Amino acid sequence: MNSFEHDLRETAADVERVLDLALPPPNGPEARVAEAMRYAAIGPGKRLRPYLVLSSADLFGVQRSCALRVAAAVEMVHCYSLIHDDLPALDNSDTRRGRPSLHRRFDEATAILAGDALLTLAFELLAEPDTHGDPLVRCELVRVLAAAAGTQGMVGGQMLDMAGQGKELDIGAVTRLQRLKTGELIAYSCEAGAILGHSAETPRKALRAYAHDLGLAFQIADDLIDAEGDAVTVGKPTGQDHAAGKATFVSLLGAERAREQARILADQAIRHLDLFLEKADPLRAVARFVVDRRS
Amino acid sequence: MNSFEHDLRETAADVERVLDLALPPPNGPEARVAEAMRYAAIGPGKRLRPYLVLSSADLFGVQRSCALRVAAAVEMVHCYSLIHDDLPALDNSDTRRGRPSLHRRFDEATAILAGDALLTLAFELLAEPDTHGDPLVRCELVRVLAAAAGTQGMVGGQMLDMAGQGKELDIGAVTRLQRLKTGELIAYSCEAGAILGHSAETPRKALRAYAHDLGLAFQIADDLIDAEGDAVTVGKPTGQDHAAGKATFVSLLGAERAREQARILADQAIRHLDLFLEKADPLRAVARFVVDRRS
Repeated sequence: MNSFEHDLRETAADVERVLDLALPPPNGPEARVAEAMRYAAIGPGKRLRPYLVLSSADLFGVQRSCALRVAAAVEMVHCYSLIHDDLPALDNSDTRRGRPSLHRRFDEATAILAGDALLTLAFELLAEPDTHGDPLVRCELVRVLAAAAGTQGMVGGQMLDMAGQGKELDIGAVTRLQRLKTGELIAYSCEAGAILGHSAETPRKALRAYAHDLGLAFQIADDLIDAEGDAVTVGKPTGQDHAAGKATFVSLLGAERAREQARILADQAIRHLDLFLEKADPLRAVARFVVDRRS
Repeated sequence: MNSFEHDLRETAADVERVLDLALPPPNGPEARVAEAMRYAAIGPGKRLRPYLVLSSADLFGVQRSCALRVAAAVEMVHCYSLIHDDLPALDNSDTRRGRPSLHRRFDEATAILAGDALLTLAFELLAEPDTHGDPLVRCELVRVLAAAAGTQGMVGGQMLDMAGQGKELDIGAVTRLQRLKTGELIAYSCEAGAILGHSAETPRKALRAYAHDLGLAFQIADDLIDAEGDAVTVGKPTGQDHAAGKATFVSLLGAERAREQARILADQAIRHLDLFLEKADPLRAVARFVVDRRS
């Protein structure tokens, strides 16, 4: 395990402690929804988005306890989106992170409600005074997260994904779909550090630019894993995109050109970080990790 | 039409204008989710919660444009909860407000995503500077709405509702269920006016106390309508609670005692408003309307 992977695991453990405190305790007659939220949010997962929040916040000397709360909120939104995307009416996935998906482990009603509750709790967490002493910062964290999660972000992307199945999407349409579906939350993860740190406009824009290239590189790598990986390593069934008739970067470009494109995007992402000098090394490591990973 | 009903309609029209501006335009490849959000949020509906926001805000001389934005956010959260509650995995309702429910008019995937997007957009709207000049107020609006919508509010109540079907719930359990499922958002609608108006603790608590009694009276009246009304007047199928084996105030108390209890609660709600003198007359009118309505 290199030092980047060590840092990633340490962040994951820290974020899980914050999640454990923030999630409702599994007590009382409505315990089932709390158990489901915990099943989805605590457990396996690389916690890449939390790591991006922490690493971006570090550029501005933000207190780690504040950044961890934002990281936990981002992870809640990410987990909510996975729960709802896995539902039978959407992607109908039985497996997630090597375990039964939430509606398979619990039931569909609980999965819908647990997703709703995670999304809601993310905004509650951000709005609480402990997240940052400046209420303007907290409002901005809420506003930008909502924008990244809504119809101009994750929900819009998922809608495009549903609408595009079995249709001939070109590379422009797939790029836009992925920018919305996964790119906006990744961009938020980096921008949140800048918001927490009262950043000037230029570094904030550089982080967004980095995150957009990173998000696409990440998605291409994901498509390659889906096309080439085996289910045991990946932790979810592979070959799903092909089976669902989904246009992906791999189906459009072929595996070799897709792999090359991911590397180009990772390099491009790294170049946006020049102004942060060596302080941005963790973010550079993320970009390299994302295109090299196998699961 | 009396003057209260006239005011209610005027508020409904004003809120719909704000909703129309705030909801995404139904353009582009992801238009379907925007159409679905509009179908759910604009159209029939009494807009009782927006009226509560406006009337509570009036007690503190809050600018109407600010209160209308909060009213629109509350209505978005209310509509999201109806969409998700109607889904086949939850209440499986085919009709809502006299029209096909969202998943019947569109499809299940679109209904799940449109609900998610309405919930998300509510928080975005509240966090935007136009909602209030003081960012502390905006944070408090977000935080308290999230608490009312989460596991200690609407989601928790819906979970109890699912878990309780076919079980012998007593009056205490039904009261708690309804306080969470519908009471907390009604309480928020009133408390939001106090938050917007930088209210002291005593009037804010009085509004919450009013709203809690009002919420229960509202729910008992709803149960009576479900038990006694006909589908055409009510706009959705009646007798649903009985068919689903749900314990309600009517099944536990009988229609006559339930009707009496609703009137007692409405009177009790009104007494909490004494400190506001005649300025609270619109809120008093709501309490009377709620127990007298037939749909």
